[in-house]
Amino acid sequence: MGKLEEYFLKAYEVAESGRGKTSPNPFAGALIVKDNAIVGRGHTQSWGNDHAEIQAIKAAGKEAAGATMYVTLEPCCFQGRTPACTEAIINAGISRVVIGIIDPNPRVNGKGISALEEAGIEVKHGYMEKEIRQQLEYYLTWIEKQRPFVILKTAMTLDGFIAGADGNSKWITGAEARKRVHGLRQEVDAIITGIGTILADDPQLNCRLEGNESQPLRIIIDRDLRIPNESRIVTSAKSQKTIVFCSEGCEPQKMEQLQKAGIQLEVREREAISPQTILSYLYELHLNCVIVEAGNRLSSAFIRADMVDKYFIFIAPSLLGNGLKAFSLTENDNLSQRKKLRFDTIQYYGDDCLVIAYPQR
Amino acid sequence: MGKLEEYFLKAYEVAESGRGKTSPNPFAGALIVKDNAIVGRGHTQSWGNDHAEIQAIKAAGKEAAGATMYVTLEPCCFQGRTPACTEAIINAGISRVVIGIIDPNPRVNGKGISALEEAGIEVKHGYMEKEIRQQLEYYLTWIEKQRPFVILKTAMTLDGFIAGADGNSKWITGAEARKRVHGLRQEVDAIITGIGTILADDPQLNCRLEGNESQPLRIIIDRDLRIPNESRIVTSAKSQKTIVFCSEGCEPQKMEQLQKAGIQLEVREREAISPQTILSYLYELHLNCVIVEAGNRLSSAFIRADMVDKYFIFIAPSLLGNGLKAFSLTENDNLSQRKKLRFDTIQYYGDDCLVIAYPQR
Repeated sequence: MGKLEEYFLKAYEVAESGRGKTSPNPFAGALIVKDNAIVGRGHTQSWGNDHAEIQAIKAAGKEAAGATMYVTLEPCCFQGRTPACTEAIINAGISRVVIGIIDPNPRVNGKGISALEEAGIEVKHGYMEKEIRQQLEYYLTWIEKQRPFVILKTAMTLDGFIAGADGNSKWITGAEARKRVHGLRQEVDAIITGIGTILADDPQLNCRLEGNESQPLRIIIDRDLRIPNESRIVTSAKSQKTIVFCSEGCEPQKMEQLQKAGIQLEVREREAISPQTILSYLYELHLNCVIVEAGNRLSSAFIRADMVDKYFIFIAPSLLGNGLKAFSLTENDNLSQRKKLRFDTIQYYGDDCLVIAYPQR
Repeated sequence: MGKLEEYFLKAYEVAESGRGKTSPNPFAGALIVKDNAIVGRGHTQSWGNDHAEIQAIKAAGKEAAGATMYVTLEPCCFQGRTPACTEAIINAGISRVVIGIIDPNPRVNGKGISALEEAGIEVKHGYMEKEIRQQLEYYLTWIEKQRPFVILKTAMTLDGFIAGADGNSKWITGAEARKRVHGLRQEVDAIITGIGTILADDPQLNCRLEGNESQPLRIIIDRDLRIPNESRIVTSAKSQKTIVFCSEGCEPQKMEQLQKAGIQLEVREREAISPQTILSYLYELHLNCVIVEAGNRLSSAFIRADMVDKYFIFIAPSLLGNGLKAFSLTENDNLSQRKKLRFDTIQYYGDDCLVIAYPQR
């Protein structure tokens, strides 16, 4: 590995510190190197605060002049909540910038590079592209597909059951796997579930990790407003924002009760409540990433609509041989119709394992 | 790690070379060390040939006198197809023997240690017991439970389907996973399957690895003798031993045709054809280890009877959402009735992964 690759890998690693804190902005990492010494590093701060480049320039101080900056994502070139990074780079006297990937945001998309070059800075780009595209998969999907990145999470037995024939699904997996789910909830912007899960499990759908700072938005699909007023979702709606999608024609009194409890109702035609419409709505809310934590029916609807970008499947070391399957795709009557995935990683969490997979597209 | 542990680990590793070649004998590994130098090593040879100790003593020659032997399994002390190893150790002048586990075979079971001690040799035992018990799990189960060790192998989608709703199950997993199955077939003594699998897939149930020397016995459960005379099992029965379990009262002409083709028929009362009776029969044939490669019905019968000792579950990176489940345990209507397993290892084979698990007993 050459020096450039070594510094670049460091910038990529530094970026990780911003994960989950910058939505809807991407999280980048920047390193400033002068005379073979790292003189500054930075990662994107929470929304509205410093970008990675600014942090690194502040850390480098006067050393930035004549130095090289390594940055995972093309610097922004417009004044948003923060000043344009390209300006700061030019003003700091950086003489060379090595960029990972171009920012596909139409307001940047190569214009950041042009601005730097016009100022006489030497710019190279195209490093660790595959890794950075995966690192920024939430943001890139949001920009490129104009919808949030969708993670589907489920927990099942080794033979694919998420609940017994009696419907009970509690604690298929152990404490460490559940803790991992809370970590994931900390990272995403919203959790989507269906009324079936609410009625079966009465979940809280929050992140219960120590030190967690903000809770994900909760989205419930409940066409007929069957959600009990005493459910934990409703009773906690004033402290964690909750949107319920329901059909036209629900009982006005029930609607009023829920709204009083702090629930935001989104009323749609029954057929218009689909993965596509929900995701379009969430895109407009600037949500980069959502997690579907639902039962067989809603999960299957997202799979069928090809709206799952990443699978988190926790597998418990057990066989049930009977019960509620994770997914139903009854239109598939032979193997050639299977949805092909690609295993990304498989890790142990206590006695369970977590299979992370991507759809093959 | 001390010197003793280091040598012991080597003996354990040397033993692996005997895997799959020594049935029904266990495969052991032996190391002879003198003045901190390894002067001989050996592993159990094919049945009727040298045991590990003899190989190591031959390799050490005169150096064996006054040396220490490290051996994974208690040396045998009876004249079988080969002379007693204890005799050879005493005659070689070995002064110290470090043993992994005691051989539970009633003809040994501590008597090997006594014989060495009576000859004035210093003996220690109880090293790497957990690892060696797993290494020799086929043999130890055969001795201790008086039945072969049972491996259940299946290949399924990530959501637990082994075939489409149309019954087709070919090539759920890829070439590397299938090659691993052939490696497993090389290691076991017999393959058990049901008539359903024969009719659906017309499999050969042999090991097609280059350099393979012997084929496993094939056991087919086919109560009504529905196996086609032109099936690959029947047409190859003269070159690979095949036993078909069938019920009383099958058509005599069909029975004769199969016998002429080289099939050995085992006729039983219909109800007496069970995992238990089949395994008892195979125990009497001195088979240490069998693999069940069957469909939902026969696999489930073995699970239900608690007769599965190890699971090899290949998981393809795909979701089907519909079709034939791997197992049916319809008596389980809630999660508390699940069969608990323990993941041993999870490995990639090409795009697929292999989950190796043990039942929790």
